[in-house]
Amino acid sequence: MVLVNVSSMDHVLLVTLDLGGTFVFAISGAVVAVKHRLDAFGVMVLAFAAGNMGGIARDVLIGAVPPAAIEHLSYLGMSVLAGLLVFFWDALATRLSNPVLWFDAVGLAFFAVAGAQKALFYGLNPVMAALLGMLTGVGGGMLRDLLVLQIPTVLRSDLYALAALAGAAIVVAGDALSIPAVVTTIAGGLACFFLRYMAIRHGWHLPTASSGKH
Amino acid sequence: MVLVNVSSMDHVLLVTLDLGGTFVFAISGAVVAVKHRLDAFGVMVLAFAAGNMGGIARDVLIGAVPPAAIEHLSYLGMSVLAGLLVFFWDALATRLSNPVLWFDAVGLAFFAVAGAQKALFYGLNPVMAALLGMLTGVGGGMLRDLLVLQIPTVLRSDLYALAALAGAAIVVAGDALSIPAVVTTIAGGLACFFLRYMAIRHGWHLPTASSGKH
Amino acid sequence: MVLVNVSSMDHVLLVTLDLGGTFVFAISGAVVAVKHRLDAFGVMVLAFAAGNMGGIARDVLIGAVPPAAIEHLSYLGMSVLAGLLVFFWDALATRLSNPVLWFDAVGLAFFAVAGAQKALFYGLNPVMAALLGMLTGVGGGMLRDLLVLQIPTVLRSDLYALAALAGAAIVVAGDALSIPAVVTTIAGGLACFFLRYMAIRHGWHLPTASSGKH
Repeated sequence: MVLVNVSSMDHVLLVTLDLGGTFVFAISGAVVAVKHRLDAFGVMVLAFAAGNMGGIARDVLIGAVPPAAIEHLSYLGMSVLAGLLVFFWDALATRLSNPVLWFDAVGLAFFAVAGAQKALFYGLNPVMAALLGMLTGVGGGMLRDLLVLQIPTVLRSDLYALAALAGAAIVVAGDALSIPAVVTTIAGGLACFFLRYMAIRHGWHLPTASSGKH
Repeated sequence: MVLVNVSSMDHVLLVTLDLGGTFVFAISGAVVAVKHRLDAFGVMVLAFAAGNMGGIARDVLIGAVPPAAIEHLSYLGMSVLAGLLVFFWDALATRLSNPVLWFDAVGLAFFAVAGAQKALFYGLNPVMAALLGMLTGVGGGMLRDLLVLQIPTVLRSDLYALAALAGAAIVVAGDALSIPAVVTTIAGGLACFFLRYMAIRHGWHLPTASSGKH
Repeated sequence: MVLVNVSSMDHVLLVTLDLGGTFVFAISGAVVAVKHRLDAFGVMVLAFAAGNMGGIARDVLIGAVPPAAIEHLSYLGMSVLAGLLVFFWDALATRLSNPVLWFDAVGLAFFAVAGAQKALFYGLNPVMAALLGMLTGVGGGMLRDLLVLQIPTVLRSDLYALAALAGAAIVVAGDALSIPAVVTTIAGGLACFFLRYMAIRHGWHLPTASSGKH
């Protein structure tokens, strides 16, 4: 992800976190693939899809082609590394399930804020920039679930997408108010992580249409 | 959807109908989401997907990025409005099911002709412009169905896609014959609606490969 | 598929094989559609999707829009021809099932090498060019399976994607070594076909994560 409107040191920080996000999402894809008994190639595909398809969808929609995950090999490397870890160390799937939930929350936080910043940089209006930040965070998991024929969990539950949207919205609002990107990135990321924390630990969730009526 | 090759008054008419099409398709997406007990966010996602993904797919394929539905907020507004209506007014799903079928036929008609016009404007050949008009009409419903794990209804039934194709083809043929766009838009839209009417009221349908043989 | 870095005679050969690949993949899509009792339109959609969506996805990702399969009518023609053949000649599905497997292997081989060459021509790095060659080969079948709600077979089995990747990698390696494209195209295609042959005839396959542990 190229974030040319931030300083060089910020850039290093952001790329580090971004690749970390790709890595933990790729772990989630590989774990799902192993559970569905896909072969080694299927594990790699789901690792790459979960770790990168949100960003690829965003890049195609804003006209940033080839997408960063296609142009730079580091994203592929992170995905393959995650896939190999899960594939060869079978116990990892079970053992990591809880830590992954938390790494995943960190990854979601960063993808959401970085995705919003990239969309702003490409000139999208603020509302759509926030939504594209959310898409960056949730898109990979949606494709991962569809490929193994599950209704995407993000459609069902637990403030997942709303947390991503909140983080992205803070970045967008900060940009409109000319607050330095590094401040809003941290604030947005923390807000996203906090909402996921409350959803996981304390069961915060969105209502369903019928739940209030019966 | 920018239709710069029509007069300003036509433009107002077309945008009005276009947003109307987005609205009724978004209603259909929200109704499906409620039926599958998705949460509030899932309802909004399916509303937006059903109302806009046909146009987004067309825009990505013809190189018109960012797609209109991403660049202009009115499409998002219509989708959210439709989602909120269905979400908070539960009875709407059942009550509107029959009127929606007819609004949907109107929306399909307009999406098909407007989609074909946009593809022509971007220089695609006539056959592909007609097919992209059809894609604009049917694409949103296909993604809506896939996200809740149903085989897209458009693949199964009732002259739905053929009606969209017929409407789009009339626009394309009229363009080749230099007939004013407003005339072919109306003619194409009426043809599309007529085919849907016959399918809904009188059961017109396409054959399946095996039905004629057993 | 435009391959401007090869001589005119090579170009004719490549386009011929490319359209042949589209044709056999379209057959596979139409056969799946008939098995799922889709109507005539559904048969055409699955024929087009299976025959072209791999190339369309590649073209969107490398910024070659409109994609070749949208810009040139020959791809559509091949798909419709395949769809009509399967639709009107019901026995074809069963009768062709084995030959299709072999034609499909040929189509995969050509799509993989041609896809890699196009990605190289658009300036992608070698690793991603090879992966996009693979995507060209396997993408159509993935969408075909998802549209009828099956987990894509390519995720499960039989060296399918690995064969495509091997063929594409040979093209990319040859390009880096300045070996003439026609030589690496033939070598890559044969390697891909050989791996599919061994998978079909002798059951070569990739391990699954759990198979070695229980």
